[in-house]
Amino acid sequence: MEQFTKEQKLSFLRNTVRNIPDFPIPGIQFKDVTPLFNTKESLSTLTDVLLEEYKGKGITKVVGIESRGFIMGPIMALELGAGFVPIRKPGKLPAEVFEEEYEKEYGVDKIQIHKDSLSEDDVVLIHDDLLATGGTMFAAYNLVKRMGVKNIYVNFIIELEELKGRTLFPKDVDIKALIQFSI
Amino acid sequence: MEQFTKEQKLSFLRNTVRNIPDFPIPGIQFKDVTPLFNTKESLSTLTDVLLEEYKGKGITKVVGIESRGFIMGPIMALELGAGFVPIRKPGKLPAEVFEEEYEKEYGVDKIQIHKDSLSEDDVVLIHDDLLATGGTMFAAYNLVKRMGVKNIYVNFIIELEELKGRTLFPKDVDIKALIQFSI
Repeated sequence: MEQFTKEQKLSFLRNTVRNIPDFPIPGIQFKDVTPLFNTKESLSTLTDVLLEEYKGKGITKVVGIESRGFIMGPIMALELGAGFVPIRKPGKLPAEVFEEEYEKEYGVDKIQIHKDSLSEDDVVLIHDDLLATGGTMFAAYNLVKRMGVKNIYVNFIIELEELKGRTLFPKDVDIKALIQFSI
Repeated sequence: MEQFTKEQKLSFLRNTVRNIPDFPIPGIQFKDVTPLFNTKESLSTLTDVLLEEYKGKGITKVVGIESRGFIMGPIMALELGAGFVPIRKPGKLPAEVFEEEYEKEYGVDKIQIHKDSLSEDDVVLIHDDLLATGGTMFAAYNLVKRMGVKNIYVNFIIELEELKGRTLFPKDVDIKALIQFSI
């Protein structure tokens, strides 16, 4: 789709996301991103437009949040000439970790990152597939910040604008999402 | 590392895998693959040698098993001009699924794939990070087979040879692992 404009590519990607009514519970319109990865055309187009914003920023590490942030995170890392760092649920990363708690609808959840996976001089792009209320990404941002990293970018494929996830973050944080949806 | 031989690249990757004693339980020597993804050098070298075996095979879909199979699976899909298809734990994939059960050390586990994610004419590469006893990958192989796919390749980064995971599969299945370790 090289010959298409950015607007045409975004429109193609938007139409490729699949709406699943009442998943995982009644009343939720779930945005299924798997069709974005399913074909050569959608995967390469998605890669193109995701990378556009981050070329030339000197990014040295892409951090992806388990599990759906593991799909495009490593692709962006490879294409930007960076390394890839996973953030995972507790008990999954085998070496020493930093941990961050965050509130979910019911109770508290935790995420972890390997202590030696980032250094202060890294320029970090944190990626996940979807920005809803933002709790998980804000915890990830705080984890990376706590490791002394000064340059942090935040990226999503999809943003559910009405949930105002962006408002959790300090105003100067560079947060980008490709596609906006109403809930 | 373009100038290095395949043997030199494999030796570099083998030395980059980190051994974690007694994880997740005493007596297990856990092979931590996260350092393979952590730097530009290791990630691009790993990508190079993984792709070498599959160029020119006409692969149309790369299937990755949650969660660590999501890291190199999408990279291989993009680089081979294929799509990426996730296999996940129950309750994660939102559309209609096929499911396969397999035995774990304690009890039974299940994995799922979206019904419309593959077609009979696809040439499929199934990827995971590590071959141990092979139960999860054999279930994944059976899922893909059940969808009518005739051409299936199986790929791992690491193989724990003594656990003989290969012996679960029919003899004619093309199974490749980059790095062999003793347990």
